[in-house]
Amino acid sequence: MDDKINLAEKLKAFSEHWSPRTVAQMNGHDVMVVKVKREFVWHKHDDTDDFFLVLNGRLDIELRDRTVTLGPGELFIVPKGVEHRPVAKEEVEILLIEPMGTPNTGDKKTAAPRKLA
Amino acid sequence: MDDKINLAEKLKAFSEHWSPRTVAQMNGHDVMVVKVKREFVWHKHDDTDDFFLVLNGRLDIELRDRTVTLGPGELFIVPKGVEHRPVAKEEVEILLIEPMGTPNTGDKKTAAPRKLA
Repeated sequence: MDDKINLAEKLKAFSEHWSPRTVAQMNGHDVMVVKVKREFVWHKHDDTDDFFLVLNGRLDIELRDRTVTLGPGELFIVPKGVEHRPVAKEEVEILLIEPMGTPNTGDKKTAAPRKLA
Repeated sequence: MDDKINLAEKLKAFSEHWSPRTVAQMNGHDVMVVKVKREFVWHKHDDTDDFFLVLNGRLDIELRDRTVTLGPGELFIVPKGVEHRPVAKEEVEILLIEPMGTPNTGDKKTAAPRKLA
């Protein structure tokens, strides 16, 4: 991982939804790309903020009191402890940053395994 | 800072070079946008990795043994302790992530003040 990362190339290499790929690591965090479509589960992370930067497409991040809609070049950080549910009507490509090993559902029992790109 | 961040809008709001603007914070890190042109100083950060994602333009990150050239959608993380010098022939717009308060030159005496966008 000591070379540059082209995000579009990393995204071209897989097609599964809701399966983040780690492309780099920084200060104990995984930098990941993910493709998502349809709705995820409601969840929260008690110990970490949750970084979303949309690269392509449109993502709704539902919060209990409102929805934040992100297009390309827009980012939102869900504060730790805040319940949220990502929803994508069409496929969306996202850059995610979370501490290494954070379960994507907020719960290790139901989380997708973290994979390398 | 609890709403979505449009990176292009944040970048439109200023024109200075080498003066990062904090647009969001995550797990003790500042998420920043910056415009750069020409060469910066050689420096290193002993305590933190240094995250660069190019949004527009082309950035050379000179290392002592090679140069990493980034275009839009390409990222590179300079590992902590590694000397580097960013160089941009033309203006480049970058997303940076560093722990809050990290001096951009690696030295508090010469660092640009951290500003909010």
